[in-house]
Amino acid sequence: MFRHSQLETVKAGMAHPAHAAMPLHARIQRAIRQLIIDGALGPGKPLPASRALAKSLGVSRDTIEAAYVRLHAEGFIDRRVGSGSFVAEMTEFTPGHRLSQRDALLRHQAPNLSKRGNAMFRSGGVHDTLSPRPFSPGVPETRTFPLQLWERLERQVRREIGTQALAHGDPQGTEPLRRAIADYVNLERGARATADRVLVLTSSQQAMMLCASMLLDPGDGIFIENPAYHGARKAFDAAGLECVPIRVDRQGIVVEQILAQPRKAKAVSLTPSHQFPTGATLALDRRLALIEWAARHQAWIIEDDYDSEFHYAGKPTACVQGLDPHDRTIYIGTFTKSLFPGLRIGYVVLPPQLVKPMTIARTLLDGHSAPMAQLTLARFMEGGHFGAYVRTMRGIYAQRLDALVDLVQKHLSDFVEPRIPIGGLQMPCLLTCDLSERAAIDAGRRAGIELLGLSALHATGDAEAGFLMGFAASTSAETEIAVKKLANAFRTVAKL
Amino acid sequence: MFRHSQLETVKAGMAHPAHAAMPLHARIQRAIRQLIIDGALGPGKPLPASRALAKSLGVSRDTIEAAYVRLHAEGFIDRRVGSGSFVAEMTEFTPGHRLSQRDALLRHQAPNLSKRGNAMFRSGGVHDTLSPRPFSPGVPETRTFPLQLWERLERQVRREIGTQALAHGDPQGTEPLRRAIADYVNLERGARATADRVLVLTSSQQAMMLCASMLLDPGDGIFIENPAYHGARKAFDAAGLECVPIRVDRQGIVVEQILAQPRKAKAVSLTPSHQFPTGATLALDRRLALIEWAARHQAWIIEDDYDSEFHYAGKPTACVQGLDPHDRTIYIGTFTKSLFPGLRIGYVVLPPQLVKPMTIARTLLDGHSAPMAQLTLARFMEGGHFGAYVRTMRGIYAQRLDALVDLVQKHLSDFVEPRIPIGGLQMPCLLTCDLSERAAIDAGRRAGIELLGLSALHATGDAEAGFLMGFAASTSAETEIAVKKLANAFRTVAKL
Repeated sequence: MFRHSQLETVKAGMAHPAHAAMPLHARIQRAIRQLIIDGALGPGKPLPASRALAKSLGVSRDTIEAAYVRLHAEGFIDRRVGSGSFVAEMTEFTPGHRLSQRDALLRHQAPNLSKRGNAMFRSGGVHDTLSPRPFSPGVPETRTFPLQLWERLERQVRREIGTQALAHGDPQGTEPLRRAIADYVNLERGARATADRVLVLTSSQQAMMLCASMLLDPGDGIFIENPAYHGARKAFDAAGLECVPIRVDRQGIVVEQILAQPRKAKAVSLTPSHQFPTGATLALDRRLALIEWAARHQAWIIEDDYDSEFHYAGKPTACVQGLDPHDRTIYIGTFTKSLFPGLRIGYVVLPPQLVKPMTIARTLLDGHSAPMAQLTLARFMEGGHFGAYVRTMRGIYAQRLDALVDLVQKHLSDFVEPRIPIGGLQMPCLLTCDLSERAAIDAGRRAGIELLGLSALHATGDAEAGFLMGFAASTSAETEIAVKKLANAFRTVAKL
Repeated sequence: MFRHSQLETVKAGMAHPAHAAMPLHARIQRAIRQLIIDGALGPGKPLPASRALAKSLGVSRDTIEAAYVRLHAEGFIDRRVGSGSFVAEMTEFTPGHRLSQRDALLRHQAPNLSKRGNAMFRSGGVHDTLSPRPFSPGVPETRTFPLQLWERLERQVRREIGTQALAHGDPQGTEPLRRAIADYVNLERGARATADRVLVLTSSQQAMMLCASMLLDPGDGIFIENPAYHGARKAFDAAGLECVPIRVDRQGIVVEQILAQPRKAKAVSLTPSHQFPTGATLALDRRLALIEWAARHQAWIIEDDYDSEFHYAGKPTACVQGLDPHDRTIYIGTFTKSLFPGLRIGYVVLPPQLVKPMTIARTLLDGHSAPMAQLTLARFMEGGHFGAYVRTMRGIYAQRLDALVDLVQKHLSDFVEPRIPIGGLQMPCLLTCDLSERAAIDAGRRAGIELLGLSALHATGDAEAGFLMGFAASTSAETEIAVKKLANAFRTVAKL
């Protein structure tokens, strides 16, 4: 017969609320199995006769029988005719409690990752702000989004295609969305795209990872901007690439430096229309020189056009992809900033020869993107809603930028000098006081404000001290509160 | 002045329907830019005076001026006071047409991928059937899905959290879904999960890729089942791992083989509850021996529980993860088969020490999963709809399997012997006639039926000839038509 404590354990397992939906015999089977796994019932130990256990537990004998049959089927117990049931003898069996001390230690030890896994872990990943906080860079306003319109389009799509929307999607992306994206980048960004050359992904981050692994091997060099978008740099690091930083000036990445060491890298990654974080636009002669370099060395240009929708002084320059007659450019776009982050749709416009390889690689990474979101977005774009929404938001963001500049000049002029950008969702500020970047960021954090320091974006140690101030996701009133808070925080530290 | 042909090109560009939404000056700017890029207007060439061009094109002079101002701003033209506008002299400039022949050749050349990129390309990727076809393995029925209920829950979520659903999501997954998943795997799969240990992903494919790169380095060994699920094997190949095939018998993977060469691999990947494709269930003593091996060698067990919801003869055995007191097991689950593929939600239950590293890695891969789908699914599970739907579908699939077995025995018994599975969405059939596997598959394809051959799943050449027949996504009537078609196709080839 079970000891009293064992019986109590079985009863507790039976009554566990998480098991309420299980039939009684399954609950009993589960509780006894746990006793065996935990070593409370050792190999060879007899189990109570079903009649006796039924009585102790106040259940029918059939219920116990059903539990024993399943324990037997799973191999946990042996049943010998005439002599009852016994915990199975399993030579390899080691009950959990014997290792529990070692196990407890393990939990706090290094997690035993691969070398590349460790590098990814140590990189800290890419932190997107969950609920928008003051000054989060790159986060759009979502409270203004026409959610009801979106839902209406979603219902339209479902009415028309029904459960077909539930099936596997084309790994390249649904055709209507690819067509809408091609039309959009051709019209607005001067690209040369066709629906055939668009690959729909979940994000520009996925695009970076895909490019890094499909186009380069571990140890291969890639030219990156210095400073650069940290998400891109971390993706390249994770893929084992050798990042070769190239200086950025007021005309964008200094292409002469690339031409001076053309073979050091097989690809270049850049943000030509609005350099992250400096805001510089890459000059036309540099664009053309870069294209020539890529064509001559069969190198790749990875063009991240992450926020070109939001330029406040006229249209942004046409993209590099549209200027490149040699098909060496991969154009990366995303709806994370122009619509909303929770959509999880980004894309690449590919040279024709890369379409098939990249699509196949995507099936290995994570299959495909959800068809419903793609079809709804396609309809949103076809109906002109995307263009209209971007125009509205461009006006709102331009006002918010103006307000931020005013507020910084009014409250923070003792500490920083703003570098007013021509576009985008954030403004760089350079520290002009005695505060170090570290001290400024720490002071902000103590006041509940997270700032992204500029040195984190620099590959070399010569960064100007400062930080990025995102302005898109906060109203001017919200920004005012945060700026004042920050000014107070800086004032307190500067006094010390 | 422009030559006639140039003028015609500009007019054609202006009239292009894709540019209909652009203002007139932008269309003209674009058309002239294209002439410059294409080399039709060489460096130093004068542009028509704005007044003259306005007249030729029948537009106002302001329109031409606006186009010229933008071309100048982009650096395509120089403007000299008193002498007009000229195509900019750009030493690095090489018009596209000079390389057009070389370019045309390039399009048909190798796409210039990395070594690993080439390997991924050559693997052919994982092909999921877009619209369900007869016998597609692993594809669930989606026509029965309660779409209206799903939409209702979606609306509920949106009403409650509004545009908050549009923001970035927690990269680990939304808490309500992680809780619902933990409750589900504990209750139904005998796992030991908590919401803290669940990481929400887009698919089990992404889980494989994540495990492969976070836990192993290129060249590291991983034990895989032989035969094995091709998606897993291709993910490991893509990550540069050395797959070490281990025999599968009627009790699942032969763990003795692993114990005989314990250090050859740092991880094992397996489908213990319903081996893919043989359908074997891993015996308990083997499970325990595997756990011991993993604990002793600090190795990892990657447990893919891809279709355990659909066992037709009682419950499936509890998962390995729930038996493992040493936290060496990563449990992979997916809603692709239990709900619908377009959902794009899979998950892993992780040992505690892997939660942070894996979550960080996920931010580098593709950020996070769409919050709306996660929150809707959480509500679907909390409301008991998931359990109910799985029960309904289990009944339907059991009937469809029965029907398939009958049909195969009636129409295909001259050719194949079915291996009736205890669960899952497909049935293996072994060829018993003179037809080779290749010939059988080709015959099927000619009749419009795609079959997945068993040898494609084998790492070694000793596979029994045969194929998988998916039965879940077709009604018995649809299956009957396809089986008869296949029988005819085989008969035709067998006669030749």
